[in-house]
Amino acid sequence: MLKILKQSKKSKARLGALSTPHGKIETPFFMPVATRGAIKGVAAPEMKEMGARIILSNTYHLFLRPGLEIIKKAGGLHKFMGWNGPILTDSGGYQVFSLAKMRKITPEGVEFRSEIDGAKIFLTPEKAVEIQQVLGSDIMMALDICSGYPANREEIAKAVEMTTAWATRCVRQKGRKIERKKDRKQMLFGIVQGGVYPDLRQKSLDDLLKLNFDGYALGGLAVGEPISEAYKIVRRFAPLLPEGKPRYLMGVGVPEQMVRFVKMGIDMFDCVIPTRHARHGELFVFQKRGSLAGKFYRLLHVNNSQHKNNFQPIDRDCRCFACANFSRAYLHHLFKTKEPLGQRLATVHNLRFFLDFMARLRKEIREGKI
Amino acid sequence: MLKILKQSKKSKARLGALSTPHGKIETPFFMPVATRGAIKGVAAPEMKEMGARIILSNTYHLFLRPGLEIIKKAGGLHKFMGWNGPILTDSGGYQVFSLAKMRKITPEGVEFRSEIDGAKIFLTPEKAVEIQQVLGSDIMMALDICSGYPANREEIAKAVEMTTAWATRCVRQKGRKIERKKDRKQMLFGIVQGGVYPDLRQKSLDDLLKLNFDGYALGGLAVGEPISEAYKIVRRFAPLLPEGKPRYLMGVGVPEQMVRFVKMGIDMFDCVIPTRHARHGELFVFQKRGSLAGKFYRLLHVNNSQHKNNFQPIDRDCRCFACANFSRAYLHHLFKTKEPLGQRLATVHNLRFFLDFMARLRKEIREGKI
Repeated sequence: MLKILKQSKKSKARLGALSTPHGKIETPFFMPVATRGAIKGVAAPEMKEMGARIILSNTYHLFLRPGLEIIKKAGGLHKFMGWNGPILTDSGGYQVFSLAKMRKITPEGVEFRSEIDGAKIFLTPEKAVEIQQVLGSDIMMALDICSGYPANREEIAKAVEMTTAWATRCVRQKGRKIERKKDRKQMLFGIVQGGVYPDLRQKSLDDLLKLNFDGYALGGLAVGEPISEAYKIVRRFAPLLPEGKPRYLMGVGVPEQMVRFVKMGIDMFDCVIPTRHARHGELFVFQKRGSLAGKFYRLLHVNNSQHKNNFQPIDRDCRCFACANFSRAYLHHLFKTKEPLGQRLATVHNLRFFLDFMARLRKEIREGKI
Repeated sequence: MLKILKQSKKSKARLGALSTPHGKIETPFFMPVATRGAIKGVAAPEMKEMGARIILSNTYHLFLRPGLEIIKKAGGLHKFMGWNGPILTDSGGYQVFSLAKMRKITPEGVEFRSEIDGAKIFLTPEKAVEIQQVLGSDIMMALDICSGYPANREEIAKAVEMTTAWATRCVRQKGRKIERKKDRKQMLFGIVQGGVYPDLRQKSLDDLLKLNFDGYALGGLAVGEPISEAYKIVRRFAPLLPEGKPRYLMGVGVPEQMVRFVKMGIDMFDCVIPTRHARHGELFVFQKRGSLAGKFYRLLHVNNSQHKNNFQPIDRDCRCFACANFSRAYLHHLFKTKEPLGQRLATVHNLRFFLDFMARLRKEIREGKI
């Protein structure tokens, strides 16, 4: 499904075209996070306008609310939220482990309580796939066990083993449903675990390669370990993933890190940094003439009183809705008065920055600069 | 400045064209309220798109934050908020009386404390005009004394007297500034007070007519009195206002009331009802074939569980951004999960309803139906 358009000669970076049921997208790309089927204050047609080509939604949150019945009746998540581009859904595993109360993991699956009504929920690998089939996402993720950091070797070894067993069941479940034409088109990605232990990573990778997933993610990184550890793991293992399949580094990241990871052969990213920073009035701005190899952006804190009197846009060269229409002084005012328009404009700007940044990365790969 | 295009034969309703420094607008019209230079989550270009031709901003709030220095440097409120249509600013009087702490009224003006930093502020009629000149609004309002309801006759009589004295000073202040070309174009409206006492209303009206304002407002209504009292006052006094000048009923109102007030000769309205209702998920929907004389709309409570499964738009015939793109089920979900997009879409819809409703009123006057 991934066609490599250009392989860099200077690094492992590659430019590709990923075909999905909702259209073809160029890699590497960044996925804005629409947790509950919405990005803070931003509507689906505006995501497209700002340059988003694929978004990520959270299975766990959507499963709890509005629930599958509603999404099924809506005709899937795309129709429900009014977004007709590709969607990747996570498996829900990460949220179960980081958010859910009273969870209990058994080889069969994971039991937890709904944070909405306290109901007991039992999530199995089969169920995780079924849910994502109802959501109708273009890319489904296998249910995995994501250990935090620090975690001891034994714990990680167990997680790897269980992740493989669950991955096998996810693949089988997907096969079962293949009679329905639209399910056949959905892709299923496996998630390589193993923490910062190279031998466990290798084992997880070997196990999952046998299952012939449509794409592979490196999971369990960006969970608190020093970034140098993540670099080590990705540098070593990204190139071992199949060349003709997309490689997804989950939950990353900071732009300068993303540049390095792209050079290691990563094709896909998702991260809440642009939206979370926007909520706090921290805006990403490209530095003039900054090369992607160096410091190419800075953070502008629009709450700072220095912007009170600044009638320039956030970034004169940015073509986002916020920069095209409003000044820093106006944004400063909106943040100071807690007008919801402020966070919305900041979100639009930061997402545009990430999307423009990825477009620039692709251009540099195309031109042989990276 | 108001050209009467059509005077109804069936009622006192009239269709007019009001010229302002930022363009001509048809009357009667409704002004969405952008208190702090923004409508909840909605940006200026979108207000235009939804059919707003003129908006109202609050002098009191803008004076406290961001403050005049900033707006002056921005080149006025229009530039600051990115809105190039007409703006009406209130005088700040109403907010001083309803919101400010520790206020003290003297014949000279009103003293109160800033809710931001506790600083003592002394607002005089001259100052109120000066502030609005800096804001650069198309329509300025004279500083008045708005009594609440109930209020005794003596209190209202005093308020009327002071309102006249202050109105005189506002007119004088405006004259002083007339050397600047752009100030000359700003309109200044007087506010008739007098509560529900016809003789006091008459006195206030007589006093203010002598001052030859560019337009007249009926103030001190919609402050808690029974609506029948407001009808009585408006029915009697609206027709006594100059025919060739706009008549503005402040803070009104509910759509069916607006129909009646238009028939009494009112040309202008402002109200927070559409935005406030939107915040609570209460959406205005036209009834099919409902005549403006009867019950022509209903309130849809999108939080109600009956909408959980409803994949129709709020109103199939509405052309707003929310109805064009999203279902009730999606809005229900956004409200339940407190996604800020929900309130934004609801606000867009409700404002569109009010603006469409006013357009329909104008059409019916034009066609001689009202």
